[in-house]
Amino acid sequence: MPSANVYDVTEWPAGNAYEDIGAVINAIIADIKRRQTVRDSNDGGKPGAVIYIPPGDFRLRTQVVIDISFLRIAGSGHGFTSSSIRFNTPPAELERWHEIWPGGSRILVELAEPGEGAAGAAFLVQRAGNPRISSVEFADFCIDGLHFSDASNGDAENSYRNGKTGIHIASANDSFRITGMGMVYLEHGLVSHHADASTIDNNFIAECGSCIELRGMGQASKISNNLIGAGYHGHSIYAENFGGLLVSGNNVFPRGRSSIELSGVVRSSVTGNRLHAFYPGMLIFSGRCSENLVASNHFLRDHEPWAPMTRYDNGLDDQFGLLHLNGDNNSVIANHISASIDTRFLEPRGQRPVIIRIVSGTGNYVANNHIVATTERAPAGDASSSDCFSTQVEAILATENRAALDVIAIRVEPGSSRNTILDSGSAREVLMDMSANAFRATPVPGGAPN
Amino acid sequence: MPSANVYDVTEWPAGNAYEDIGAVINAIIADIKRRQTVRDSNDGGKPGAVIYIPPGDFRLRTQVVIDISFLRIAGSGHGFTSSSIRFNTPPAELERWHEIWPGGSRILVELAEPGEGAAGAAFLVQRAGNPRISSVEFADFCIDGLHFSDASNGDAENSYRNGKTGIHIASANDSFRITGMGMVYLEHGLVSHHADASTIDNNFIAECGSCIELRGMGQASKISNNLIGAGYHGHSIYAENFGGLLVSGNNVFPRGRSSIELSGVVRSSVTGNRLHAFYPGMLIFSGRCSENLVASNHFLRDHEPWAPMTRYDNGLDDQFGLLHLNGDNNSVIANHISASIDTRFLEPRGQRPVIIRIVSGTGNYVANNHIVATTERAPAGDASSSDCFSTQVEAILATENRAALDVIAIRVEPGSSRNTILDSGSAREVLMDMSANAFRATPVPGGAPN
Amino acid sequence: MPSANVYDVTEWPAGNAYEDIGAVINAIIADIKRRQTVRDSNDGGKPGAVIYIPPGDFRLRTQVVIDISFLRIAGSGHGFTSSSIRFNTPPAELERWHEIWPGGSRILVELAEPGEGAAGAAFLVQRAGNPRISSVEFADFCIDGLHFSDASNGDAENSYRNGKTGIHIASANDSFRITGMGMVYLEHGLVSHHADASTIDNNFIAECGSCIELRGMGQASKISNNLIGAGYHGHSIYAENFGGLLVSGNNVFPRGRSSIELSGVVRSSVTGNRLHAFYPGMLIFSGRCSENLVASNHFLRDHEPWAPMTRYDNGLDDQFGLLHLNGDNNSVIANHISASIDTRFLEPRGQRPVIIRIVSGTGNYVANNHIVATTERAPAGDASSSDCFSTQVEAILATENRAALDVIAIRVEPGSSRNTILDSGSAREVLMDMSANAFRATPVPGGAPN
Repeated sequence: MPSANVYDVTEWPAGNAYEDIGAVINAIIADIKRRQTVRDSNDGGKPGAVIYIPPGDFRLRTQVVIDISFLRIAGSGHGFTSSSIRFNTPPAELERWHEIWPGGSRILVELAEPGEGAAGAAFLVQRAGNPRISSVEFADFCIDGLHFSDASNGDAENSYRNGKTGIHIASANDSFRITGMGMVYLEHGLVSHHADASTIDNNFIAECGSCIELRGMGQASKISNNLIGAGYHGHSIYAENFGGLLVSGNNVFPRGRSSIELSGVVRSSVTGNRLHAFYPGMLIFSGRCSENLVASNHFLRDHEPWAPMTRYDNGLDDQFGLLHLNGDNNSVIANHISASIDTRFLEPRGQRPVIIRIVSGTGNYVANNHIVATTERAPAGDASSSDCFSTQVEAILATENRAALDVIAIRVEPGSSRNTILDSGSAREVLMDMSANAFRATPVPGGAPN
Repeated sequence: MPSANVYDVTEWPAGNAYEDIGAVINAIIADIKRRQTVRDSNDGGKPGAVIYIPPGDFRLRTQVVIDISFLRIAGSGHGFTSSSIRFNTPPAELERWHEIWPGGSRILVELAEPGEGAAGAAFLVQRAGNPRISSVEFADFCIDGLHFSDASNGDAENSYRNGKTGIHIASANDSFRITGMGMVYLEHGLVSHHADASTIDNNFIAECGSCIELRGMGQASKISNNLIGAGYHGHSIYAENFGGLLVSGNNVFPRGRSSIELSGVVRSSVTGNRLHAFYPGMLIFSGRCSENLVASNHFLRDHEPWAPMTRYDNGLDDQFGLLHLNGDNNSVIANHISASIDTRFLEPRGQRPVIIRIVSGTGNYVANNHIVATTERAPAGDASSSDCFSTQVEAILATENRAALDVIAIRVEPGSSRNTILDSGSAREVLMDMSANAFRATPVPGGAPN
Repeated sequence: MPSANVYDVTEWPAGNAYEDIGAVINAIIADIKRRQTVRDSNDGGKPGAVIYIPPGDFRLRTQVVIDISFLRIAGSGHGFTSSSIRFNTPPAELERWHEIWPGGSRILVELAEPGEGAAGAAFLVQRAGNPRISSVEFADFCIDGLHFSDASNGDAENSYRNGKTGIHIASANDSFRITGMGMVYLEHGLVSHHADASTIDNNFIAECGSCIELRGMGQASKISNNLIGAGYHGHSIYAENFGGLLVSGNNVFPRGRSSIELSGVVRSSVTGNRLHAFYPGMLIFSGRCSENLVASNHFLRDHEPWAPMTRYDNGLDDQFGLLHLNGDNNSVIANHISASIDTRFLEPRGQRPVIIRIVSGTGNYVANNHIVATTERAPAGDASSSDCFSTQVEAILATENRAALDVIAIRVEPGSSRNTILDSGSAREVLMDMSANAFRATPVPGGAPN
């Protein structure tokens, strides 16, 4: 080891990192605590350490418990590959595959009894007292839940359920960094409670039940530049009781019950993201969300093109709103929204789907959004899993020769007042009390200026 | 050492990195220069080196002077923790803390005689002649100024003054990267003169007098994805005489005399940031700034909720403008601005505060900004420092049951002409010469389209 | 070597990485394949490896061929320096330079017979069969093509031609990461075919013929936070047949035949970028691009200020459009566009240049763009190459005392219908069939609301 505070899990003298990396990391943490005991040695203290995980398959049978600040756990490879495609590939075809598991610096989560919340976490961060635990970093390794396991639907590996969480941060925390990670086949990827000034950047968290969840309360954090995509009953990004969150530059794939759900979140931003979903409710503001900005995002909703997943959806109908917003004084500006819908599957049948729905609230400002609604013929669903990629790309590329679809661009529920809707649809596309709210229709060809 | 150009400060045979990492790094740089002398060995030359700083407390008593290109100094932990909370915590409470100092790969700046500018810098980059020094990189370590020291106010540790700078780049430079760094309790975090094509990304620079300063002149750089927050008399981001700067995806905390001040900056972008401040003058364009874009940002101004800091402000009154703009042909589009003001503290009393103020200039285009102004009752100021986090979050979350506040949304000074203000406020909220400038009021409920 | 799957090219027992790093990396890959043969060892498999390139000059005489997933090749320095300035500096002046070559962990591409496509690639990624090759990562090293070599113009080193490519990905691929790389003096920097979920983030790819090319088809990727600038006949960013691409937060320098060209790209985003060009056609949508969002970008076009390059351009005239768009249902919202043109060089002479040109398509939505057009006197072209930096900065800063330039802000070709143009120019600046398309002029001072 080149330096006292640099550890390599494969060089730790006790235990075997390949058989139980959890026990090894816990032993290393104990060693750090044994060595770093002086709180104040003339302005020095407890600097923490870095624990390196080289590329390799490391089973985790013991939960890692982190209760020291300034610990960095880093690998050399996020190692994502699609387990979803693999588990939906016929065995005969799978026989010919080059490899079948994710890789990189890879943690195989094999906890004996995974369960909800902290219990099922591969990495649990928890510390009582003060100060809040600070500057723990996770970087550049892979956490793989291996299998989904809820057999109730007869489709365990597509269930997005296994009681496993990648990283569960249970205590108030400051200045954490989660960067360059890969997470796959976990029921929950990252769950952080009471986060302050967190950086969650440039991760690849996909094929997880839910991907990123900020719970409890928190402030002043960013979720940026990630590639993420949750399962059909989870969230790609979820935050609650948060102020000053910045969600930007993410590319959010399907499925996801919602792409982003914010609950009781205020004075936060969702800007410059690209979001793709198969169901209504891509963006949900629940529990009163106020003074947030949703700007410069690209929203696409179309239909599931991949056979193994066509039986699933999130249970919401098309009146729910692709954007479903509760709260006051929010801004929805300069977004592009593409809704590409096969009318055979409209719920309820024959009713115009709702794109932006302001369920409650006053003072919301919705301006300069371009809503493009077209009819599509949903792909029949290709049974050949290995063609998943070209099936998906062909589906997303098929924009030509489509008919315009009649939608409710914006629906403001009765009782909501003082909302302002500008240049985001025509009068017949916007349903609201025009006397209680302000409206300017998008100009039409050859028409009057307004 | 695994390779000739890879150094670990703890393995350098002379000196002691823990006692003076500055002397050790200077000796390593001398070694690199001694070994790399041939400018052109059949298309090869002077590739530089990497100097690794493992986690640990490293005192810096000698200034590091960098005058070679392609030097990367990298650690394994940005190590931020709040020294501000710590220094405002009663000793008895502090006794029970787990740790009291920042950590990670941590430089303790203990220069004998810090001073203004280059003199007080832990890391000084300076080289005369050609080419400009290129591709120096600072990554993933912590620079800690330890203490603020200006006792003139009887409050030294909250003074944001100590004559210490983290990184001072004195010479024209090209393609530098500052990424993943932590900086804390420095009077100046990063100061770069004559920067070309700099990357300043994903750093955590907070509780510094000023955080990021681009001085002299420069072009084509980016300040992105950082978490930053300056002191009450400094700037979180400052740039001067710059073209083609991109400031995007940053989450900028209070305090900061300004969150962003640009002086003589042109053809640059401030987009997709989340900014939070306690005083007027969050964004300042001084010294004529032209053809810049300010778009898709979230601005929040409210009141200092934390007792130790309530005695400080930046000395500006509420007529100054939350955005204070000098210059021509700028664009301010699609921003959300929340101003939450306790009218007891309005300066001058009883006058409507100004949100966007165009002090001078022509051809500015201000469109589709949503300004939400409400009254708040500023928090009493909680004396218990360890509750700082929940105090702050509760303050930011408290958006309900507030009265609308009458503001001047936009004020264009007399003499300014040919500015265009669209959909950013009502006629009574916008003060300007309507015959010399263009205006379209945000539509009002039940009103005429315009 | 600290761990079985961690390699350092300088420690590989056979060959000599300094003389041919390609042969060494290929030998390492063969070793990985020899050691990792079991596809499924109780949920473990083939985790891949990391190959480390320390700082140094490494010649590459043998093409690296990568056909395993989860391989990370990483260095400790992107090592960019301007070879363009260097090769345009008089020898006498060059004699006094500190260094003349790029550095860091630097690959000198010396393939015997470089050629088009895969043949000329330093790194070739290619694998048949399933699954697609996944999670290959390139990080933090430099690929240097050394010299441009097309002498047909008598100006070989400024030709941007040498048949060399940095990284060529020939096969369908998933979850690749290219981060922190430097590339210089390559005819093609990065070329990726059939990319799914790629991350191309925080690289410095400049002075290459073309910088980033996504070819074949692909989906759900991001090109973010890069500093890039192509040669006069290449693209800084090119993508074809792509869905769900996110291009955000990039700072794109001149020259570039185009800054960004998208061909057959749909449902993608170009948001929050800063782009600078010297020619028309900065952003091109060719081959029908539909349902894309172009928002919050800063576009600047001015004139080449640097003597050695003033003889070159991209051959397009000023009627082509600074933004040249083919396709349906795209959104162009909230952009700032500065066109600074020396009318002596207008092509064709005396005709108003076109800023946004919708060549074909319906349903496009162009709103709230601020177009600032001014006349400039192009710099005479400074012969002193070492003053290149200040010449450039002075050129970009020179915004004052300029006359407004009469332009066609938006031109919609006859036959295009149902496009909507809002608040992006006056009636006399917008040329289109007003009866077939919708229009609202930017309000003018003292004028009627519309």
